[in-house]
Amino acid sequence: MSTSHPDFDAGIAADLLERLRRKAPRVHCITNAVAQHFTANVLLALGAVPSMTIAPEEVAAFAAGADALLVNLGTLDDTRRAAIPKAVEAAKTARKPFVLDPVFVNRSQVRCSYAQDLLTASPTVLRANRDELAALYPGQDPLEALSGTSVTLAMTGAEDLTSGPGGTLRLANGHPLLARVTATGCAGGAAIAAFLAVSDDPVQAVAAALTVFNVAGEMAAERARGPGTLVPELLDALYLIDEAQIAARLKRV
Amino acid sequence: MSTSHPDFDAGIAADLLERLRRKAPRVHCITNAVAQHFTANVLLALGAVPSMTIAPEEVAAFAAGADALLVNLGTLDDTRRAAIPKAVEAAKTARKPFVLDPVFVNRSQVRCSYAQDLLTASPTVLRANRDELAALYPGQDPLEALSGTSVTLAMTGAEDLTSGPGGTLRLANGHPLLARVTATGCAGGAAIAAFLAVSDDPVQAVAAALTVFNVAGEMAAERARGPGTLVPELLDALYLIDEAQIAARLKRV
Amino acid sequence: MSTSHPDFDAGIAADLLERLRRKAPRVHCITNAVAQHFTANVLLALGAVPSMTIAPEEVAAFAAGADALLVNLGTLDDTRRAAIPKAVEAAKTARKPFVLDPVFVNRSQVRCSYAQDLLTASPTVLRANRDELAALYPGQDPLEALSGTSVTLAMTGAEDLTSGPGGTLRLANGHPLLARVTATGCAGGAAIAAFLAVSDDPVQAVAAALTVFNVAGEMAAERARGPGTLVPELLDALYLIDEAQIAARLKRV
Repeated sequence: MSTSHPDFDAGIAADLLERLRRKAPRVHCITNAVAQHFTANVLLALGAVPSMTIAPEEVAAFAAGADALLVNLGTLDDTRRAAIPKAVEAAKTARKPFVLDPVFVNRSQVRCSYAQDLLTASPTVLRANRDELAALYPGQDPLEALSGTSVTLAMTGAEDLTSGPGGTLRLANGHPLLARVTATGCAGGAAIAAFLAVSDDPVQAVAAALTVFNVAGEMAAERARGPGTLVPELLDALYLIDEAQIAARLKRV
Repeated sequence: MSTSHPDFDAGIAADLLERLRRKAPRVHCITNAVAQHFTANVLLALGAVPSMTIAPEEVAAFAAGADALLVNLGTLDDTRRAAIPKAVEAAKTARKPFVLDPVFVNRSQVRCSYAQDLLTASPTVLRANRDELAALYPGQDPLEALSGTSVTLAMTGAEDLTSGPGGTLRLANGHPLLARVTATGCAGGAAIAAFLAVSDDPVQAVAAALTVFNVAGEMAAERARGPGTLVPELLDALYLIDEAQIAARLKRV
Repeated sequence: MSTSHPDFDAGIAADLLERLRRKAPRVHCITNAVAQHFTANVLLALGAVPSMTIAPEEVAAFAAGADALLVNLGTLDDTRRAAIPKAVEAAKTARKPFVLDPVFVNRSQVRCSYAQDLLTASPTVLRANRDELAALYPGQDPLEALSGTSVTLAMTGAEDLTSGPGGTLRLANGHPLLARVTATGCAGGAAIAAFLAVSDDPVQAVAAALTVFNVAGEMAAERARGPGTLVPELLDALYLIDEAQIAARLKRV
């Protein structure tokens, strides 16, 4: 991975968000059953358009016409297993960006092998936490393993790191209450796909998506009493967030 | 289609809503994975009872005992494909009303052909937007194509039109923020099914369902800060809405 | 069933809740499609960790490593049908508690037979309402049918009863508005599984889970305007509830 420090600030994040709101890219999501509803609402709140079918007969048509593809491996049943390769092939053929989110590969060897196969299709972005990366690249530093490839890494955690052909960025926004709501991470992966649809620089797109999502999460957590009220507040914040709010809170490390 | 103007006003909408709240009809929904949870909550807020199984082995028993059936084609996987004909047959045999919502048939030819087959089973109501109708009836005016049939059309959009054996009505309630929440249209289709269960006049039932749903949406949008808070406010409004609120806002065109 | 009256009060409920929040047990849920999202959020609000895959290839690994298993029979499709026996066997082998929630067995004979088979695997807790129990044990008193077995019954309704090897308890918390939100009962079953993971006394665990859930529901209903705002308020209340609030409201009968 490059050690350069690509341009990134609140202005870049806000410009990409503005482009997203203006272009309303469609993001096709093959995501897990728990996350589908919240993911669709996150995309709509941001200004993107979700489509969510997982039917193998239909998914190529939906993915080919979309502006970006998300493949999330939570709840990896037979239907999704059959649909994913078709959607990935359609996205690659149409030269559309594609995010892989290998949820919980550290808890199931079957799922981990499936994810390792998918990595050979070179997703634009691999979004994962440390435990998932340790399962995907046993005994290796994932940054080294991906070095020289076209894959941009979005490693999420208490701090987030994104690294790819354009360089490396470290970010530290977010709020612990987000972890008490299901599918916030999965929805964040969909946000990355939406930003990829309006940017040619994957590292900037990942950084903008994580920043907008996590800053909105901070704003929401300040208005919420607990994880229940956090959900509507987070969607409102994603809908309302502006450059001044991003600038006031953006934390690079 | 008839050019007559059937009776419809806030009193009729409120009477049907009152009947719905008193009778608590059960609506069996074969709907897409993204919409299931919100659709169930919309039906419960209105006073109806949802059942949602899509298992082919069970669906005939559930549909036969229900008061109305909703068939929504979003996320049309193998299980739903196998379940839908059984549910439709059970509903027809039991003479229960049945709503077809051919979501996104304009984005997948496979899905469009499936929907065209289903139309031969004569749904009580076909709910669709202009793009979906253009895909279902290429080169035809859908109103003419359905003229003389028993199918009532519910064409939704910035303005809504319903037309069937009882005549034609145009309505203009709603709020743009509803489009920033996933599955509001799908849940609106379930509301139509619930109103069909308590009315013998499909045009009136469609008009009442769309009016109650969209007026509640307007009331909710005035209390909400964005699409997140809109969801709880919409469900509360569906639960609380009364004749005076409907009368104050009903817009016929 | 024993007629003894086991120890149970607000202090016991609060101690188990505190243990749950400290240990953060993972509950693997094979639950219906409508309930998955809300169930995951209820578990997270309580302090537990949900995992939700239903893929037959993966479910044994997920269930074996979890601290408790929930099997809910709503939307019983082929995938779930194949996954459930594998998950149950993994949980039994690993000596993890397992809750069976035979939703709507009174509406489908296929589902009822499936549930009766599952009962032979001796779930730690059978959670059901009166109609479901009447279908499972036709012509029998379910308390008598389960007498002498290791299964603890959690019979929910306007009043709740739990009865098992440790004795019998009757509880009367809750609020009618909870019935106007989908999947509150299903999520309550997941709460039982979470409390079983931190207690060796199933009757106490059931009583604590029902009390915490229903008292939180009462607190939420007082803050909510309707079933829409009830959902975020309920999740907040589950997150915030403390011993004093439980003590002030606990109703044994």
